[in-house]
Amino acid sequence: MRLPAGGQGLVVQKYGGTSVASAELIRSVAQRICRAQADGRQVVAVVSAMGDTTDRLLALAREVSDRPNPRELDLLQSTGETVAVTLVAMAIEALGTPAISLTGGQAGIRTSALHGRARIEGVDTRRLHRELDAGNVVVVAGFQGVTEEMDVTTFGRGGSNITAVALAAALKAALVENYTDVEGIYTADPRLEPRARRLRDISYQEMMELATWGAQVMHPRAVELAALYNVPVLVASSFSEAPGTLIHSEVTMEDVNRLRGIAADASIAKITVLGVPDRPGIAAALFEPLAAAGISVDVIVQNASVERVTDLTFTVARGDLATSLETVRPVAKGMGALDVISDATVAKVSAVGTGMQNAPGYAARMFRALAAASINIEMITTSEIRITCIVAESQLKQAVRVLHEVFDLESEASSP
Amino acid sequence: MRLPAGGQGLVVQKYGGTSVASAELIRSVAQRICRAQADGRQVVAVVSAMGDTTDRLLALAREVSDRPNPRELDLLQSTGETVAVTLVAMAIEALGTPAISLTGGQAGIRTSALHGRARIEGVDTRRLHRELDAGNVVVVAGFQGVTEEMDVTTFGRGGSNITAVALAAALKAALVENYTDVEGIYTADPRLEPRARRLRDISYQEMMELATWGAQVMHPRAVELAALYNVPVLVASSFSEAPGTLIHSEVTMEDVNRLRGIAADASIAKITVLGVPDRPGIAAALFEPLAAAGISVDVIVQNASVERVTDLTFTVARGDLATSLETVRPVAKGMGALDVISDATVAKVSAVGTGMQNAPGYAARMFRALAAASINIEMITTSEIRITCIVAESQLKQAVRVLHEVFDLESEASSP
Repeated sequence: MRLPAGGQGLVVQKYGGTSVASAELIRSVAQRICRAQADGRQVVAVVSAMGDTTDRLLALAREVSDRPNPRELDLLQSTGETVAVTLVAMAIEALGTPAISLTGGQAGIRTSALHGRARIEGVDTRRLHRELDAGNVVVVAGFQGVTEEMDVTTFGRGGSNITAVALAAALKAALVENYTDVEGIYTADPRLEPRARRLRDISYQEMMELATWGAQVMHPRAVELAALYNVPVLVASSFSEAPGTLIHSEVTMEDVNRLRGIAADASIAKITVLGVPDRPGIAAALFEPLAAAGISVDVIVQNASVERVTDLTFTVARGDLATSLETVRPVAKGMGALDVISDATVAKVSAVGTGMQNAPGYAARMFRALAAASINIEMITTSEIRITCIVAESQLKQAVRVLHEVFDLESEASSP
Repeated sequence: MRLPAGGQGLVVQKYGGTSVASAELIRSVAQRICRAQADGRQVVAVVSAMGDTTDRLLALAREVSDRPNPRELDLLQSTGETVAVTLVAMAIEALGTPAISLTGGQAGIRTSALHGRARIEGVDTRRLHRELDAGNVVVVAGFQGVTEEMDVTTFGRGGSNITAVALAAALKAALVENYTDVEGIYTADPRLEPRARRLRDISYQEMMELATWGAQVMHPRAVELAALYNVPVLVASSFSEAPGTLIHSEVTMEDVNRLRGIAADASIAKITVLGVPDRPGIAAALFEPLAAAGISVDVIVQNASVERVTDLTFTVARGDLATSLETVRPVAKGMGALDVISDATVAKVSAVGTGMQNAPGYAARMFRALAAASINIEMITTSEIRITCIVAESQLKQAVRVLHEVFDLESEASSP
């Protein structure tokens, strides 16, 4: 059966770097693509660079320059995806299915000129439609586009998923299938909680919270884009036939009322500025230099002021701790703070679920469960559908298990 | 001193794969480019893929497909040059000189759609001029261009040199500097004849004969293009400061009358079709299937016919021998030939020089010198400025030395 280009017969499959890390894996990806084609679907495949290619290219860049130009870095990195798409297209053709590879620019992906973190400004789908109409599987290089001047750009984190979602939106595809090295989204990291269960589906909003707070499957930027265009995304493993997890807007009523997962992140550090005068502009003075240094500040907690003096605590990625301290110390001194202290042995644990919006009491249950396990909560922050606690890294695994159990995540259909 | 873009202040430097095979070599290439820029010249640098990159990419292609699509192969291979130009541009910028890398397409190189051996149809120099006017060193990926549809093409053999010459012609540059791993063009291969001398200059025509007959420095297609646009090309080593050899049209009178070099090629094989009926169309019937199989036939000799039966001998690249025999045997049988025999232990030695055009006697001296050294000549073929003999491979080195001596190539300025 042949379907017209675009619409419900079209699927965008995305294959991450680990799925195409070798010639053998590329042949297996080609087989999966050909099966979808044989099922009567049109396939646009978005492919990332093979395995550690991007890291190797960046290492080369560092060998020739301490501060490589972002435009050159983009063109350099883009070759990784380009190599992968040509090989995937060849492997598909070797199975007797016509295929063509396209770079981001050839696929019509136009972006801003912000090298290293370009935004898609539009997709000119003419070539894509022409190739699909000609009966080709179209294999598109992820993570890249071109500016109006035809300079190559990359999207930064979440790159290839952003390409897949953007193409699905532009082509009005029925589905994005995001093939990666995990079998879907779990109620917790299975390495921390062996009883973690794969979720059948999850809402965009829940996925965004999970992604930020530890799940590495799909960057929040890509999830956000999928939510914006209401593109359903199936997360599944390219190494198995397991059914995966569907990210979409129509989560069943049963699941809406549930807590969906426990996210964990051990790679953080905590910085506390002690004895800060409590006056307007203090927070901006502290965090603006960090932003200028490219450091993302995560959880921020400010104690209630005592005699117009307060303590301000925040977390950063552990790899950013040294630079953060260098940046913050002179500022803190300048504003008359007493001291700056840090702790690189903390971790984040979060409970996530749209169910929280409707039912109170989740936070209390979470704090009680952690206390019962003698886990001290150092900081707390919440969103509408998430509660996050900072705990000692040594207690992270235990915290995940305690919460997984208290919220009954192991079982398929119970409610809290 | 800053000069306007194009014209006499502009030089196109070309760096081959061995010249950019490592980060260290790339930094040294960047230094050479910056020196030229500091001398007040504008520089367009054309760069090949690092070291064995192209071979590695082709090996990957073979791992996923027995017969990779030429379009995909072109896009795949083009990434090798793209990686190299970004690294060279970064290395130049690290030395404080502004630089930008351009793919063949970005540099405006438009080609035919004949993948793997595309021809340049034109160069749109607008972006090149804009970047040069902005004070940038422009680093262009060699070997590649794009079709009207923006599909990436490659030029096949001689690729990056073709890019360099085409850009020099389009930008009206004063000179192409072809940096490679040899110090210039020699009177003979120094591995065969240690007394070989570097030529100060050589004509396009002589260079074409030398290139075909063994010198691997610059493919005849690139030399032909340089001759067509009268672009002078300096061949020099990127590993030394030796002055190199200038390929141009104005060879001095002194040198015009000389024999310039001895070329040698040991990688050939000889095929003889015995007892062929001597009637029209026989040669075409034999050679057309070889051409169809992509096999270049080189020296062809047909014996004088005896009783309307003749022997036909020709040479092919040694790597093509097996396929050639498979192709020729059924054809020869079909035309009633007695037998097909082959010899993979032969080699070619050639004497080259425009001087031959004006002075007879070179051939006689060559044959006499070889005979005096007991070297048997199996086949002979000549052009206006070249005499080629097929000899036993075991006697090739001796043949080169004998001819180098008899034509007095060791000394700078003697005439024959």
